[in-house]
Amino acid sequence: MPTTVKAYAATSATEPLTPTMIERRDVGPHDVRIDIRYCGVCHSDIHTARGEWGATDYPIVLGHEIAGIVAEVGAEVTRFRVGDRVGVGCLVDSCRECRYCRRGDEQFCAEGYVETYSGTGRDGRPTQGGYAEAIVVTEDFVLRIPDALALDVAAPLLCAGITAYSPLRHWGVGPGTRVAVVGLGGLGHMAVQLAAAMGAEVTVLSQSLKKQEDGLRLGATHYAATSDPDTFARLAASFDLVVNTVSASIDVDAYLSLVDVDGTMVNVGIPEHPQSLDVLSLLMRRVSYAASNIGGIRETQEMLDFCAEHGIAALVETIGVEQANEAYERVVASDVRYRFVIDTATLA
Amino acid sequence: MPTTVKAYAATSATEPLTPTMIERRDVGPHDVRIDIRYCGVCHSDIHTARGEWGATDYPIVLGHEIAGIVAEVGAEVTRFRVGDRVGVGCLVDSCRECRYCRRGDEQFCAEGYVETYSGTGRDGRPTQGGYAEAIVVTEDFVLRIPDALALDVAAPLLCAGITAYSPLRHWGVGPGTRVAVVGLGGLGHMAVQLAAAMGAEVTVLSQSLKKQEDGLRLGATHYAATSDPDTFARLAASFDLVVNTVSASIDVDAYLSLVDVDGTMVNVGIPEHPQSLDVLSLLMRRVSYAASNIGGIRETQEMLDFCAEHGIAALVETIGVEQANEAYERVVASDVRYRFVIDTATLA
Repeated sequence: MPTTVKAYAATSATEPLTPTMIERRDVGPHDVRIDIRYCGVCHSDIHTARGEWGATDYPIVLGHEIAGIVAEVGAEVTRFRVGDRVGVGCLVDSCRECRYCRRGDEQFCAEGYVETYSGTGRDGRPTQGGYAEAIVVTEDFVLRIPDALALDVAAPLLCAGITAYSPLRHWGVGPGTRVAVVGLGGLGHMAVQLAAAMGAEVTVLSQSLKKQEDGLRLGATHYAATSDPDTFARLAASFDLVVNTVSASIDVDAYLSLVDVDGTMVNVGIPEHPQSLDVLSLLMRRVSYAASNIGGIRETQEMLDFCAEHGIAALVETIGVEQANEAYERVVASDVRYRFVIDTATLA
Repeated sequence: MPTTVKAYAATSATEPLTPTMIERRDVGPHDVRIDIRYCGVCHSDIHTARGEWGATDYPIVLGHEIAGIVAEVGAEVTRFRVGDRVGVGCLVDSCRECRYCRRGDEQFCAEGYVETYSGTGRDGRPTQGGYAEAIVVTEDFVLRIPDALALDVAAPLLCAGITAYSPLRHWGVGPGTRVAVVGLGGLGHMAVQLAAAMGAEVTVLSQSLKKQEDGLRLGATHYAATSDPDTFARLAASFDLVVNTVSASIDVDAYLSLVDVDGTMVNVGIPEHPQSLDVLSLLMRRVSYAASNIGGIRETQEMLDFCAEHGIAALVETIGVEQANEAYERVVASDVRYRFVIDTATLA
């Protein structure tokens, strides 16, 4: 029998989020019902709420950085018990049969993975996200949050954390790798910590030196302002991997000039407009331009365990759900250090 | 003492190539003087002759696909003897000390490698290419042409061959790799043969099916027309590596849509204008967009040996030097199957 739970929803592209009630499906044999404690505010939530990524089906409950406690498990569930500390990220299901799913890359599912919100569940119903009291998810898409991680600072790991972690692993970051992180926001502050913990020499490239102290404390060795044109000349061909966390359009050629022979620039943000580049920028040093989107379930668990082992978490500003609209404005203005997390107890 | 040799030179961006005499430096202790027998006509020659790649210093002798016979060796030369069959490609020297040179990647030399023509030799004099009777090159930049390869069909391997070979090796092409070659011209007809010999499943993507028979004979398994819009839908996410040999601007997103998860599209041609792409085209399947430029000396030798072992050579149309101007027009019109090679005996 479906359960009705309190949530906070967008009802149109232009109106503020408002309280609502939504139905969660009955806990099936392989499902886990999670009492949500915290949910991070990701920029994607805002794009979707405002219909900036194509048509949104309103009302919609956003949120895919979910941390909570298992409240009920289906009869066949083997991996979780009531009381377990768990998380849910950007995907809540996939076909499980294509070659991508079989190798643990559910984010590339040939049929398209089921997004935590604005997706269509395998039961045919629209999915609704984590700005809510509870969620029901099939156990294979539930992550275990290690005891060493508090739930509030773990929540943003489920999207921002894995989005930063996956490309660092994919492009082989390790001791001595020279990594530049462009932008010190929600994604950037995770990328700096993770790359440093992997042993990389990390440089933050930010518009100004305003957050330099934070960057160095998070593990960066160098910090440079991209508003200073000298930065690009000084750091030419200096990096093995440039992780661009900025979603705004950039001068791609200028950033590619920072990449050394056989290095890569990888975007984890998605600019709204096409990006233009001179193929010579790639050709002169056999540079690759790539992009990376979240990660699979197995890798997300690996990332959570890595964070617990290395004492890494998100820096968060915890808010009540009624502050979500103000938080959206501040995220758009890049005025958060470094992630808002909604305390869902305030839904009550 | 310098030697004067017959050559064929461009004297301005607009006038036809004409006969001339040029000086070659005296054979130094580490130098090899090569009697040139054949020199391929590369599209780069035309761009440089016509000043399309920045200011050209006239008069200039083009040609960096050189095959010939050793005529004289310096006192310290150890690797070559008079009578040896040898080649010279796009580079005739480099700093030899930077970390790129030390690992055999002279094409990335930190000081810039010395180009076979339109460069500045380490003696400070401008370099002149292979549309000439002879050339003097330091032995470390001279390649050995295996006996199994005739000199005329070997000449184009020194640029077109290595330019196609290097990215195939760098991106790990081997048995079962799904490779698409975009464009069946001088570079493309080498890429098809090389990839097929490495065990890849090769598809040619050409504007029309006009050269389909050639493509299949060269080793391709499939051949598709890019003028047919159905081609892109049918081949979506089908390739591990797309080698784009076309220098004209293309719809980058359309070609990226052909690349499977974790695959790469690599340009070996350089479009004149910036290319535009939607980062989503990279992000959806963690695709990389890259470019590759020739190869180092060690890899060029490896490529020549590979070609000899697998019976691979360029398909050429041999011409007299007086036909070079007409050949330029035909290269620009893509009217050559698949490389013009100048028989330098016609200089006499």
